[in-house]
Amino acid sequence: MINENVSIALVHYPAMDREGKLIVTSFTTMDLHDIARPARAYDVRKFYIVQPIDAQRLVIKRQIDYWLSEEGRRSNPTRYEIVQLVSLKYTLDEVVEDVEREKGKRPIIVGTDARKYPNTVGYEELSREIARREREYLLVFGTGYGLPPDMMRTFDYILEPVYGAGDWNHLSVRNAVAIILDRLFSRNRC
Amino acid sequence: MINENVSIALVHYPAMDREGKLIVTSFTTMDLHDIARPARAYDVRKFYIVQPIDAQRLVIKRQIDYWLSEEGRRSNPTRYEIVQLVSLKYTLDEVVEDVEREKGKRPIIVGTDARKYPNTVGYEELSREIARREREYLLVFGTGYGLPPDMMRTFDYILEPVYGAGDWNHLSVRNAVAIILDRLFSRNRC
Repeated sequence: MINENVSIALVHYPAMDREGKLIVTSFTTMDLHDIARPARAYDVRKFYIVQPIDAQRLVIKRQIDYWLSEEGRRSNPTRYEIVQLVSLKYTLDEVVEDVEREKGKRPIIVGTDARKYPNTVGYEELSREIARREREYLLVFGTGYGLPPDMMRTFDYILEPVYGAGDWNHLSVRNAVAIILDRLFSRNRC
Repeated sequence: MINENVSIALVHYPAMDREGKLIVTSFTTMDLHDIARPARAYDVRKFYIVQPIDAQRLVIKRQIDYWLSEEGRRSNPTRYEIVQLVSLKYTLDEVVEDVEREKGKRPIIVGTDARKYPNTVGYEELSREIARREREYLLVFGTGYGLPPDMMRTFDYILEPVYGAGDWNHLSVRNAVAIILDRLFSRNRC
């Protein structure tokens, strides 16, 4: 694994709705496939899904188990490969503990957001820092209308927003994960 | 519109299956949202969906019509915005004709593929060429196991594959569109 010191997390709770109220968002099948694929292509250690609702966790587990089964493996070998990266957790704290337990270091937590924060880090800077392989990194992606600002403020870094060609920036979280991993880790980005 | 000389097309036919046989692939809701979003963010002219099967076209039209309706607009203003970019066509030839009719020039057709072809063009080179605004460009994205090589060989350029961190490159077409548009048109890519 090239980026064995990098994990990513998709957070279904806490998330904000359009008015900024706290909600739990739902898992969608595409969140699994379209985030696990870039996670595998850019060779990161793990893709954590944070989901506290048991009924939702059951749906996610059932899908992962299917693709890990003999039948799933035969019908789609690529999916079998990518779901092995997925790990389901109740909270972001549990994710941080998992990294710490497996890698022996608390990860640097890097938030992502369409808004700019004071402790913003650029793509080239973060990419170079990660490539030193001295520390663990956890890239955190929100759902719905994003992670609450109170939580963002506890993170070590906030990654610079992904800017498009103009001012419109309502990309999906799946778009954002693919673009951000490409910017940080591709062999032929520029 | 910043990239008014750029259109993108998602081709459901022709497509290949795992054995290289020709198939028609199915539209998925996520193809609409997760490709229309980067199309809007990177400010291209139009997102064409090529689908020859009438039953499939009906499903696509119904969704577009909903998001364009008063009710759809109220429930999700961003989707209302993005579906306006979508245009449904029977064949890729029909797409080329549409560009020609509206813009007065036949577009340079740029294929995308995970395999490398002889007439490969790099991201920086194509990005600079497009920015001259002298010609029209149509970026073509395959579905299933990609566009047939016979068709690829008729295109003017083939874009260099998106490489991840290592050799694994089974990204979804939605991942590929987001990454490719970001590489070509973002304001803060590097």
